[in-house]
Amino acid sequence: MIAVLRLGHRPFRDSRVSTHCALIARAFGADKLIYSGEHDQKLEDSINKVTDNWGGPFKIEHTKSALKTIKDFKKKNFKICHLTVYGLPIQNEIGKIRKYKNILIIIGGSKVPGEIYQLADFNIGVTQQPHSEMGSLCIFLDRYFEGKELNNKFNGWKMKVIPNENKKIIEKKK
Amino acid sequence: MIAVLRLGHRPFRDSRVSTHCALIARAFGADKLIYSGEHDQKLEDSINKVTDNWGGPFKIEHTKSALKTIKDFKKKNFKICHLTVYGLPIQNEIGKIRKYKNILIIIGGSKVPGEIYQLADFNIGVTQQPHSEMGSLCIFLDRYFEGKELNNKFNGWKMKVIPNENKKIIEKKK
Repeated sequence: MIAVLRLGHRPFRDSRVSTHCALIARAFGADKLIYSGEHDQKLEDSINKVTDNWGGPFKIEHTKSALKTIKDFKKKNFKICHLTVYGLPIQNEIGKIRKYKNILIIIGGSKVPGEIYQLADFNIGVTQQPHSEMGSLCIFLDRYFEGKELNNKFNGWKMKVIPNENKKIIEKKK
Repeated sequence: MIAVLRLGHRPFRDSRVSTHCALIARAFGADKLIYSGEHDQKLEDSINKVTDNWGGPFKIEHTKSALKTIKDFKKKNFKICHLTVYGLPIQNEIGKIRKYKNILIIIGGSKVPGEIYQLADFNIGVTQQPHSEMGSLCIFLDRYFEGKELNNKFNGWKMKVIPNENKKIIEKKK
């Protein structure tokens, strides 16, 4: 089970970025996204609509306490991977991480409490340059699944893209 | 030379997403980001500040006409790679694309004009699932550079992260 914890969501201001985080989590093979910060029904609805149309399984959930969620996952023997520019290079660490099948991936968040660096089993940097939690999440999942996630099939889809050289083709289930 | 063309920027509404696109372009080895839509001095200033602090080279530029920019790049023998969910799977196409050293990568944009699908030498899908232009750009560059971009060094930096297991360490040039 691969879960993603997105820290400190603020409705409106973060809605697009959090939506993209959730869609990346889904498209690249994570099972669920949990977000802390404020509850946002619109965010949940938009992600559930994507899963409904394009297939799953994928879940989105809110938590009132990121720290409690992290501690709960640790108790269930999940390895906690916090993605941060300050962490150790992913290319050196992913081999160790891939041995574990139950992972909680943490992504920021404007300000990440210091406690999270300590709770994490792995603090991982995807490049040592400032960029984006979306970029980090995407590359982390791609490395973890060794690129195989690009061929993932989704269940219960109503719509599916048929890849084409220069046309938009969508197959729809009746 | 690897350039990224971001279509249809709208200041305020797109500012965070376009900022993340530019930062991903820079962190993952592209040389510049050109954006169409409205001119946005704040966007340019924030990216130039990152390049100034964390190193370069990296440029950000505005264009009044995305189509003219694409045609200009075509004349200069750049291959045009348009990233779209409808395109052919990246894992099948990247080997062909990697042979070319001058690439213009196009990313949307809420509505991409049909003409762009025709002008593109490659319409490329990063998964066939809806997610994010940031995810697509990130994976495209990572595949194009075969992961070597994770070790990129930047020139003229004033600040640099020293990777660490659980601490934030930044080296600053005096």
